[in-house]
Amino acid sequence: MTTKAPGAGTMKALVYLGPHTKALQDRPRPVLDAPTDAIVRMTRTTICGTDLHILEGDVPGCEPGRILGHEGIGVVEAVGSAVTAFKAGDAVLISCVSACGKCSYCRRQMYSHCATGGWILGNRIDGTQAEYVRIPHADMSLYPIPADADEESMVMLSDILPTGLECGVLNGKVQPGSTVAIVGAGPIGLAALLTAKFYSPARIIMIDLDDGRLALSKRFGATDTVNSSDGKAADAVMTLTGQLGVDTAIEAVGVPATFELCQGIVAAGGTIANIGVHGRKVDLHLETLWDRNITITTRLVDTVSTPMLLKTLCSHQIDPKALITHRFAFTGILEAYETFSHAAEHHALKVIIAF
Amino acid sequence: MTTKAPGAGTMKALVYLGPHTKALQDRPRPVLDAPTDAIVRMTRTTICGTDLHILEGDVPGCEPGRILGHEGIGVVEAVGSAVTAFKAGDAVLISCVSACGKCSYCRRQMYSHCATGGWILGNRIDGTQAEYVRIPHADMSLYPIPADADEESMVMLSDILPTGLECGVLNGKVQPGSTVAIVGAGPIGLAALLTAKFYSPARIIMIDLDDGRLALSKRFGATDTVNSSDGKAADAVMTLTGQLGVDTAIEAVGVPATFELCQGIVAAGGTIANIGVHGRKVDLHLETLWDRNITITTRLVDTVSTPMLLKTLCSHQIDPKALITHRFAFTGILEAYETFSHAAEHHALKVIIAF
Amino acid sequence: MTTKAPGAGTMKALVYLGPHTKALQDRPRPVLDAPTDAIVRMTRTTICGTDLHILEGDVPGCEPGRILGHEGIGVVEAVGSAVTAFKAGDAVLISCVSACGKCSYCRRQMYSHCATGGWILGNRIDGTQAEYVRIPHADMSLYPIPADADEESMVMLSDILPTGLECGVLNGKVQPGSTVAIVGAGPIGLAALLTAKFYSPARIIMIDLDDGRLALSKRFGATDTVNSSDGKAADAVMTLTGQLGVDTAIEAVGVPATFELCQGIVAAGGTIANIGVHGRKVDLHLETLWDRNITITTRLVDTVSTPMLLKTLCSHQIDPKALITHRFAFTGILEAYETFSHAAEHHALKVIIAF
Amino acid sequence: MTTKAPGAGTMKALVYLGPHTKALQDRPRPVLDAPTDAIVRMTRTTICGTDLHILEGDVPGCEPGRILGHEGIGVVEAVGSAVTAFKAGDAVLISCVSACGKCSYCRRQMYSHCATGGWILGNRIDGTQAEYVRIPHADMSLYPIPADADEESMVMLSDILPTGLECGVLNGKVQPGSTVAIVGAGPIGLAALLTAKFYSPARIIMIDLDDGRLALSKRFGATDTVNSSDGKAADAVMTLTGQLGVDTAIEAVGVPATFELCQGIVAAGGTIANIGVHGRKVDLHLETLWDRNITITTRLVDTVSTPMLLKTLCSHQIDPKALITHRFAFTGILEAYETFSHAAEHHALKVIIAF
Repeated sequence: MTTKAPGAGTMKALVYLGPHTKALQDRPRPVLDAPTDAIVRMTRTTICGTDLHILEGDVPGCEPGRILGHEGIGVVEAVGSAVTAFKAGDAVLISCVSACGKCSYCRRQMYSHCATGGWILGNRIDGTQAEYVRIPHADMSLYPIPADADEESMVMLSDILPTGLECGVLNGKVQPGSTVAIVGAGPIGLAALLTAKFYSPARIIMIDLDDGRLALSKRFGATDTVNSSDGKAADAVMTLTGQLGVDTAIEAVGVPATFELCQGIVAAGGTIANIGVHGRKVDLHLETLWDRNITITTRLVDTVSTPMLLKTLCSHQIDPKALITHRFAFTGILEAYETFSHAAEHHALKVIIAF
Repeated sequence: MTTKAPGAGTMKALVYLGPHTKALQDRPRPVLDAPTDAIVRMTRTTICGTDLHILEGDVPGCEPGRILGHEGIGVVEAVGSAVTAFKAGDAVLISCVSACGKCSYCRRQMYSHCATGGWILGNRIDGTQAEYVRIPHADMSLYPIPADADEESMVMLSDILPTGLECGVLNGKVQPGSTVAIVGAGPIGLAALLTAKFYSPARIIMIDLDDGRLALSKRFGATDTVNSSDGKAADAVMTLTGQLGVDTAIEAVGVPATFELCQGIVAAGGTIANIGVHGRKVDLHLETLWDRNITITTRLVDTVSTPMLLKTLCSHQIDPKALITHRFAFTGILEAYETFSHAAEHHALKVIIAF
Repeated sequence: MTTKAPGAGTMKALVYLGPHTKALQDRPRPVLDAPTDAIVRMTRTTICGTDLHILEGDVPGCEPGRILGHEGIGVVEAVGSAVTAFKAGDAVLISCVSACGKCSYCRRQMYSHCATGGWILGNRIDGTQAEYVRIPHADMSLYPIPADADEESMVMLSDILPTGLECGVLNGKVQPGSTVAIVGAGPIGLAALLTAKFYSPARIIMIDLDDGRLALSKRFGATDTVNSSDGKAADAVMTLTGQLGVDTAIEAVGVPATFELCQGIVAAGGTIANIGVHGRKVDLHLETLWDRNITITTRLVDTVSTPMLLKTLCSHQIDPKALITHRFAFTGILEAYETFSHAAEHHALKVIIAF
Repeated sequence: MTTKAPGAGTMKALVYLGPHTKALQDRPRPVLDAPTDAIVRMTRTTICGTDLHILEGDVPGCEPGRILGHEGIGVVEAVGSAVTAFKAGDAVLISCVSACGKCSYCRRQMYSHCATGGWILGNRIDGTQAEYVRIPHADMSLYPIPADADEESMVMLSDILPTGLECGVLNGKVQPGSTVAIVGAGPIGLAALLTAKFYSPARIIMIDLDDGRLALSKRFGATDTVNSSDGKAADAVMTLTGQLGVDTAIEAVGVPATFELCQGIVAAGGTIANIGVHGRKVDLHLETLWDRNITITTRLVDTVSTPMLLKTLCSHQIDPKALITHRFAFTGILEAYETFSHAAEHHALKVIIAF
């Protein structure tokens, strides 16, 4: 229960200044605000597709002046008086979701809807693309980094791996011998692919518009790939599955066309697990689906699977390092954004930013 | 393993003759066709909303000349050589779904999708609105009627109670203390209400356009009712639930407006369980639901819950007789159709037709 | 986040002084020790069978000098700086289990095994049979009392109802239409009976040595009763169940003979859910059970079901008041112990002690 | 629906003649008895530990004169009039459990307790260690062999793989990142090991008395091994798991000492999944386990997982061929028994007997 106050002073931070505008600025270092807070000195962070959404102006809750970022690892600098699990000097993983652990949602493992938390980092409070960050509900929102863990791999546990696993694989009820289609072979679809393999499905069909990403999917363990640019992806999947469709269709894009595709390929009794962030309503074809015994799920990642993921990582059941394609120093974060926001051109998946 | 052949001769049957046309006709009595068949002499049947759909011409698989009906009870007249659970003279409940028990769907309890069964009675093969009916896969599709069971109540177990329970209550994961809204207080909504009570929810909010049915819902155990005719039902439900919404929203109508309402009242983490037969696509508001951790289910009743329902009926955990409002002789079945198809006017729920 | 310090001074408390010895003594009032603590002024408490175990000297972790009691309701007097859900003046229910909400056990809802909590009240730290009590991890271990709740009923939610529900009914997977036997018709067996009814089983068979308690069980909703004093209870249950046995056998006594009985009556595919506190090993008849597809569960109550129980109580799905047979003032607590420890003689179930 | 009668004549069969006695005899070929039967010409079979139990005289239901064997593959020779899924000439896998698919147990997927089936092959009716075998309930008890499947691997799907998976892994709730101990590294323990890997546990600790089998376990994917011959296996497992114990303890031997060991190493909240065939009662330490939130399961394999296993086999998620150590012609079956019953000496796991 160390309570060393953070040194005063300023720090560098990547700040959202309104739609399409950001800058690397000097900001005051964060200080402890509640007894359950911790201050973490960042050592590595990354950029998420959601950061790009904010920069598009599509996330109304995020106001100009906000330090972006909700992923990363670091070292605890100071903790509040009610923090019991961490002390200054501890190497920690930061969860993208802050959870009090005691509200009615947290008690049901819906940390994403925590009454005083949820996805607030880099959104409603300042985030991790800065030299220091204040983490509320530290005991529930930080995780100790195991001694021999690979630090870059750990960064993938902040958001992308629990998102693929919880919203895609667990909600999609992937099982040994089952058939899975993942629509979207970007980082989040690949994270779903990596974590689907925990359950030994017989078939993982990856669907995307980009042949490069499909080729990469094969290296990650996809058994089949379908390029959907000809508008015939549903036919291709039905052919691959003997006209039965897939047990699990994971939507990892977030536009009407990909959700439509999922409806066209889900088997009777199957599940459509939505991961994508949707900006518009979609058509739901109840006229054909009402009697097909299907399930559709939505979810904002709860990060309740982080302890499980840490165990699978330490026991080498998963190697998320393959998701990392580019590395930058924090001083080069604007360049990192440039690379990540033109991912196809740069063959980029996840970027690592080191402090 | 009795195999007495059915007496030759004719019988009276209610026959679908094409959209908006039906007649009570003389038809040859059915005969055993497969070793797993049984012939049942009907003693009581009823009319389902789906029969009305067929008469509207909305069920393409059902061709003119078809004897309608998929519910009822009777007495076994003859059984095929492979039927082992029943013999001539047994009083039986007929399930609306025929199931082989051995295809890949039946092994997963998806009897509704049985490769050689499903909902075929009174649809793809002749049904129960006749003096005799052939039941395929008899061992899986008939149930012995317990000695002291009320016969009229038993008719409610053919379709309406398992539909309310499986598609609404079980898919909707109703739990002790939870909050349930049922949109539609017709027979199927009331069947969902009756079976929801198995799980002791704290609140059952019934929503309908008809004050009479809402008043009836209260007698069936609804804790709250909302008349949705003013277009403000969602607001009313949110007020009743402290702006949280309901854990389970059961759609028991089958039109876009009622599915829309369900989306407006489901709580974060909740479930929309669709029962309604939909003829058109609906809007799915993923732009607001993508991060709400909700589940949407569809299902054609599988009747896997029939053994459970028989036990609850025999132990007086449920009294479905209250669903029955009118009684007719089989010779009066055209009048029964008239009453049932103008249900509001006649204050009709389910009708019983006795042979 | 009120932090009013508790007034200094002394209070009356029931103190364990070693095996077979207890006294009502003056003790210093408790004070806040951790920022997550609350001090509660007790308004009602009760006595548990476990308190009697302590007085027998059977609970080694409980040392002389300990204030007993782990149940009750009261009013918050003061809270630590990290308590956010409660403030001075709030009427609260005290859970028998203290839970931090953030250790690996709490994250899995195993509050009973909380790394810094569990069943510590009146065991490893001072308890609720006193005018004031310190409650650690207050946000997770207290519950607000709803405005119109019956206070005596609320006391039953500290321990006995969640124990019957979690260890007996939930672990025993009681379902609509299923068959349940409860061995032991004391307070805990009756709590299992009351909460089993949430799930509408077809049959609840109550087994005890005392005809008075069996008669009472009938009033609580048992469908059948068996007096086991003739050593033939297993035969009686098998006869009642057509030689199938019961789907769920709940052990609510804690001696080898009753666990043996459960093994003799559980159906193939059934569950034995142990609630009893056992002091000795028992025989497990794997020579007959290895191929019977049975499940045996043990559990120390986690009180994760408290929110659900509060909802069922407020919606009148359960009336636990019937468990209360005797009432005492706190000054008469020694007499209350006398009554409770000779329960059969006094026809006592639960006693209420008011401050 | 071919119904070619089997050619008359005799066949060779391995016959149980009473305790410790068996012989290869001439027996009449089996004929169709019920419309749901099939006659299968065997192409490969194997020997199970249970066959040795019968020869010890430990299986009272199995009478002298019985043809042994409940595993294997073959070609359909004839089918009864109610068999719809198979015809003469089909290559089939024989399940060790016969299931009607329609009794109350089969509807609950408890095929092992089928009212007219269960484990009857080579036990209550003649079995598969013969040139021909009659298979009752053929549609539910046979499985088509995929075109490109390895025939020897298929034989492992009759019994040993579903047993390891259902009784050990599924009952034991093995999960990604969890910790598993398997007590007994014989064929059945190794089958549990192979199928546990479907779920990506972090750790699989194999425990046995034989260093050779432990070395083999490592090749099958065990992360740790413990030789229990020094009586200190529990200490070793607790050390390996940081004194927490294992989430899942699988008992794959069937004697009191190994069940005792499982109780000593199961973590709070964990599961003991029994596979072993026990001849005697065991001690259950409820005095220490009553408050540890553990689950104990027993199960006779139901073979409900066979369709899943077929999919995992065809998609190369598992390679059961490694379980096969010796091969014999059917004429050498007495030698095969000799080898299998002295497994340690011969370093034998499973033997294949080809016709």
